Amino acid sequence: MSLDPAIAARLKRTGDGLVPAVVQQYDTGEVLMLAWMDDEALHRTLTTGRATYWSRSRGAYWVKGDTSGHVQHVRSAALDCDGDTILLKVDQVGAACHTGDRTCFDADRLEVTSG
Amino acid sequence: MSLDPAIAARLKRTGDGLVPAVVQQYDTGEVLMLAWMDDEALHRTLTTGRATYWSRSRGAYWVKGDTSGHVQHVRSAALDCDGDTILLKVDQVGAACHTGDRTCFDADRLEVTSG
Repeated sequence: MSLDPAIAARLKRTGDGLVPAVVQQYDTGEVLMLAWMDDEALHRTLTTGRATYWSRSRGAYWVKGDTSGHVQHVRSAALDCDGDTILLKVDQVGAACHTGDRTCFDADRLEVTSG
Repeated sequence: MSLDPAIAARLKRTGDGLVPAVVQQYDTGEVLMLAWMDDEALHRTLTTGRATYWSRSRGAYWVKGDTSGHVQHVRSAALDCDGDTILLKVDQVGAACHTGDRTCFDADRLEVTSG
Protein backbone atom coordinates (compact mmCIF):
# COMPACT_ATOMS: atom_id res chain seq x y z
CA MET A 1 0.00 0.00 0.00
CA SER A 2 1.13 3.51 -0.67
CA LEU A 3 -0.24 7.02 -0.27
CA ASP A 4 -3.81 7.54 -1.47
CA PRO A 5 -3.43 8.73 -5.10
CA ALA A 6 -6.03 11.45 -4.49
CA ILE A 7 -3.77 12.92 -1.80
CA ALA A 8 -0.56 12.31 -3.76
CA ALA A 9 -2.06 14.27 -6.67
CA ARG A 10 -2.61 17.32 -4.46
CA LEU A 11 0.91 17.39 -2.95
CA LYS A 12 3.44 19.91 -4.23
CA ARG A 13 6.89 18.70 -3.32
CA THR A 14 10.25 20.46 -3.18
CA GLY A 15 12.90 19.50 -5.70
CA ASP A 16 13.96 16.64 -3.44
CA GLY A 17 10.43 15.24 -3.20
CA LEU A 18 9.61 16.49 0.28
CA VAL A 19 6.87 18.54 1.93
CA PRO A 20 7.36 20.41 5.21
CA ALA A 21 5.15 19.33 8.11
CA VAL A 22 4.35 21.85 10.84
CA VAL A 23 3.74 19.97 14.09
CA GLN A 24 1.46 21.51 16.68
CA GLN A 25 0.33 20.32 20.11
CA TYR A 26 -3.39 19.75 19.55
CA ASP A 27 -4.72 21.26 22.79
CA THR A 28 -2.31 24.05 23.78
CA GLY A 29 -1.59 25.19 20.21
CA GLU A 30 2.19 25.22 20.78
CA VAL A 31 4.16 24.86 17.54
CA LEU A 32 6.50 22.03 18.48
CA MET A 33 8.75 21.56 15.46
CA LEU A 34 8.95 21.37 11.70
CA ALA A 35 9.93 18.17 9.95
CA TRP A 36 9.87 16.78 6.40
CA MET A 37 7.79 14.10 4.75
CA ASP A 38 7.85 12.31 1.47
CA ASP A 39 4.79 10.44 0.19
CA GLU A 40 5.68 7.30 2.13
CA ALA A 41 6.21 9.16 5.42
CA LEU A 42 2.81 10.83 5.01
CA HIS A 43 1.22 7.49 4.18
CA ARG A 44 2.72 5.89 7.31
CA THR A 45 1.67 8.87 9.44
CA LEU A 46 -1.94 8.78 8.25
CA THR A 47 -2.32 5.01 8.50
CA THR A 48 -0.54 4.42 11.83
CA GLY A 49 -1.39 7.62 13.70
CA ARG A 50 2.29 7.90 14.67
CA ALA A 51 4.13 10.90 13.25
CA THR A 52 6.73 9.62 10.78
CA TYR A 53 9.18 11.84 8.93
CA TRP A 54 12.00 11.71 6.43
CA SER A 55 15.29 12.71 8.01
CA ARG A 56 17.20 14.81 5.50
CA SER A 57 20.43 14.49 7.51
CA ARG A 58 20.24 10.71 7.95
CA GLY A 59 18.45 9.89 4.70
CA ALA A 60 16.04 7.57 6.50
CA TYR A 61 12.49 7.34 7.80
CA TRP A 62 12.11 8.36 11.38
CA VAL A 63 9.19 7.48 13.64
CA LYS A 64 9.20 10.27 16.19
CA GLY A 65 9.81 8.80 19.65
CA ASP A 66 11.16 5.40 18.57
CA THR A 67 14.51 6.26 20.12
CA SER A 68 13.60 8.95 22.66
CA GLY A 69 10.19 7.70 23.76
CA HIS A 70 8.87 11.17 22.87
CA VAL A 71 6.10 9.85 20.68
CA GLN A 72 3.66 12.01 18.72
CA HIS A 73 0.13 10.63 18.55
CA VAL A 74 -1.53 12.28 15.56
CA ARG A 75 -4.94 13.83 16.24
CA SER A 76 -5.50 15.47 12.86
CA ALA A 77 -3.75 16.32 9.62
CA ALA A 78 -4.43 18.89 6.92
CA LEU A 79 -2.92 20.11 3.69
CA ASP A 80 -2.65 23.81 3.03
CA CYS A 81 -4.38 25.67 0.21
CA ASP A 82 -1.70 24.95 -2.36
CA GLY A 83 -0.73 21.48 -1.18
CA ASP A 84 2.84 22.33 -0.26
CA THR A 85 2.64 22.17 3.55
CA ILE A 86 1.17 19.68 6.03
CA LEU A 87 -0.18 20.64 9.44
CA LEU A 88 -0.15 17.83 11.99
CA LYS A 89 -1.91 18.26 15.31
CA VAL A 90 -0.43 15.78 17.75
CA ASP A 91 -0.37 14.79 21.36
CA GLN A 92 3.33 15.08 22.19
CA VAL A 93 4.72 12.78 24.88
CA GLY A 94 7.49 14.63 26.74
CA ALA A 95 9.81 17.02 24.94
CA ALA A 96 9.43 17.58 21.20
CA CYS A 97 12.99 18.87 20.84
CA HIS A 98 16.10 16.68 20.93
CA THR A 99 17.64 19.30 23.26
CA GLY A 100 15.06 18.41 25.92
CA ASP A 101 13.07 21.62 25.39
CA ARG A 102 9.33 21.26 25.04
CA THR A 103 9.44 22.83 21.57
CA CYS A 104 12.24 23.42 19.07
CA PHE A 105 11.52 27.17 19.19
CA ASP A 106 12.11 27.78 22.91
CA ALA A 107 15.80 28.68 22.90
CA ASP A 108 16.54 31.24 20.19
CA ARG A 109 14.28 34.29 20.22
CA LEU A 110 15.01 37.02 17.68
CA GLU A 111 14.50 40.69 18.46
CA VAL A 112 11.69 42.36 16.50
CA THR A 113 11.00 46.04 15.93
CA SER A 114 7.24 46.31 16.42
CA GLY A 115 5.29 47.24 13.31
CA MET B 1 21.82 47.39 6.19
CA SER B 2 21.42 43.66 6.01
CA LEU B 3 20.61 40.80 8.36
CA ASP B 4 22.55 40.78 11.65
CA PRO B 5 25.60 38.56 10.92
CA ALA B 6 25.09 36.75 14.24
CA ILE B 7 21.67 35.64 13.02
CA ALA B 8 22.83 34.95 9.46
CA ALA B 9 25.52 32.64 10.85
CA ARG B 10 22.90 30.52 12.63
CA LEU B 11 20.57 30.13 9.64
CA LYS B 12 20.57 26.86 7.72
CA ARG B 13 19.11 27.49 4.29
CA THR B 14 17.73 25.14 1.66
CA GLY B 15 19.66 24.77 -1.60
CA ASP B 16 17.88 27.84 -2.94
CA GLY B 17 18.85 30.01 0.04
CA LEU B 18 15.51 29.95 1.82
CA VAL B 19 14.21 29.10 5.27
CA PRO B 20 10.57 28.15 5.96
CA ALA B 21 8.66 30.44 8.30
CA VAL B 22 5.73 29.03 10.27
CA VAL B 23 3.24 31.81 10.93
CA GLN B 24 1.04 31.59 13.99
CA GLN B 25 -1.63 33.90 15.40
CA TYR B 26 -0.02 35.09 18.64
CA ASP B 27 -3.07 34.87 20.92
CA THR B 28 -5.23 32.01 19.62
CA GLY B 29 -2.31 29.79 18.57
CA GLU B 30 -3.80 29.10 15.12
CA VAL B 31 -1.20 28.10 12.55
CA LEU B 32 -2.06 30.49 9.73
CA MET B 33 0.32 29.60 6.91
CA LEU B 34 3.85 28.69 5.95
CA ALA B 35 5.97 31.00 3.82
CA TRP B 36 9.61 31.32 2.81
CA MET B 37 12.29 33.84 3.72
CA ASP B 38 15.76 34.58 2.53
CA ASP B 39 18.15 36.65 4.67
CA GLU B 40 16.79 39.94 3.32
CA ALA B 41 13.15 38.99 3.98
CA LEU B 42 14.04 38.05 7.55
CA HIS B 43 15.95 41.30 7.96
CA ARG B 44 12.98 43.33 6.72
CA THR B 45 10.58 41.35 8.93
CA LEU B 46 12.64 41.90 12.08
CA THR B 47 13.33 45.58 11.45
CA THR B 48 9.88 46.67 10.24
CA GLY B 49 7.62 44.38 12.28
CA ARG B 50 5.70 43.59 9.07
CA ALA B 51 5.92 40.00 7.90
CA THR B 52 7.86 39.93 4.63
CA TYR B 53 8.48 36.80 2.57
CA TRP B 54 10.16 35.61 -0.59
CA SER B 55 7.61 34.41 -3.11
CA ARG B 56 9.02 31.33 -4.83
CA SER B 57 6.37 31.48 -7.56
CA ARG B 58 6.83 35.16 -8.33
CA GLY B 59 10.56 35.44 -7.50
CA ALA B 60 9.98 38.63 -5.52
CA TYR B 61 9.69 39.97 -2.00
CA TRP B 62 6.19 40.10 -0.67
CA VAL B 63 5.01 42.19 2.25
CA LYS B 64 1.99 40.29 3.50
CA GLY B 65 -1.08 42.49 3.19
CA ASP B 66 0.32 45.07 0.77
CA THR B 67 -2.18 43.95 -1.85
CA SER B 68 -4.93 42.35 0.24
CA GLY B 69 -4.82 44.56 3.32
CA HIS B 70 -4.42 41.36 5.34
CA VAL B 71 -1.34 42.60 7.18
CA GLN B 72 0.64 40.55 9.69
CA HIS B 73 2.01 42.56 12.61
CA VAL B 74 4.89 40.57 14.05
CA ARG B 75 4.77 40.05 17.82
CA SER B 76 7.75 37.71 18.15
CA ALA B 77 10.16 35.63 16.12
CA ALA B 78 12.32 32.63 16.97
CA LEU B 79 14.71 30.25 15.26
CA ASP B 80 14.45 26.55 15.92
CA CYS B 81 17.14 24.40 17.53
CA ASP B 82 19.05 23.80 14.31
CA GLY B 83 18.45 27.16 12.64
CA ASP B 84 16.48 25.85 9.70
CA THR B 85 12.97 27.07 10.58
CA ILE B 86 11.55 30.41 11.74
CA LEU B 87 8.46 30.75 13.93
CA LEU B 88 6.68 34.09 13.60
CA LYS B 89 3.91 34.98 16.01
CA VAL B 90 1.78 37.65 14.40
CA ASP B 91 -1.42 39.57 14.76
CA GLN B 92 -3.21 38.72 11.52
CA VAL B 93 -5.59 41.31 10.08
CA GLY B 94 -8.46 39.49 8.34
CA ALA B 95 -7.87 36.24 6.48
CA ALA B 96 -4.38 34.77 6.27
CA CYS B 97 -5.24 32.69 3.21
CA HIS B 98 -5.63 34.07 -0.30
CA THR B 99 -8.79 31.94 -0.59
CA GLY B 100 -10.43 34.05 2.10
CA ASP B 101 -10.14 31.36 4.77
CA ARG B 102 -8.78 32.41 8.13
CA THR B 103 -5.89 29.97 7.79
CA CYS B 104 -4.38 28.10 4.85
CA PHE B 105 -5.13 24.78 6.58
CA ASP B 106 -8.91 25.13 6.91
CA ALA B 107 -10.04 23.46 3.69
CA ASP B 108 -8.22 20.16 3.18
CA ARG B 109 -8.36 17.81 6.17
CA LEU B 110 -6.76 14.38 5.74
CA GLU B 111 -8.17 11.28 7.39
CA VAL B 112 -5.97 9.80 10.11
CA THR B 113 -6.06 6.35 11.68
CA SER B 114 -5.63 7.06 15.38
CA GLY B 115 -2.40 5.77 16.91
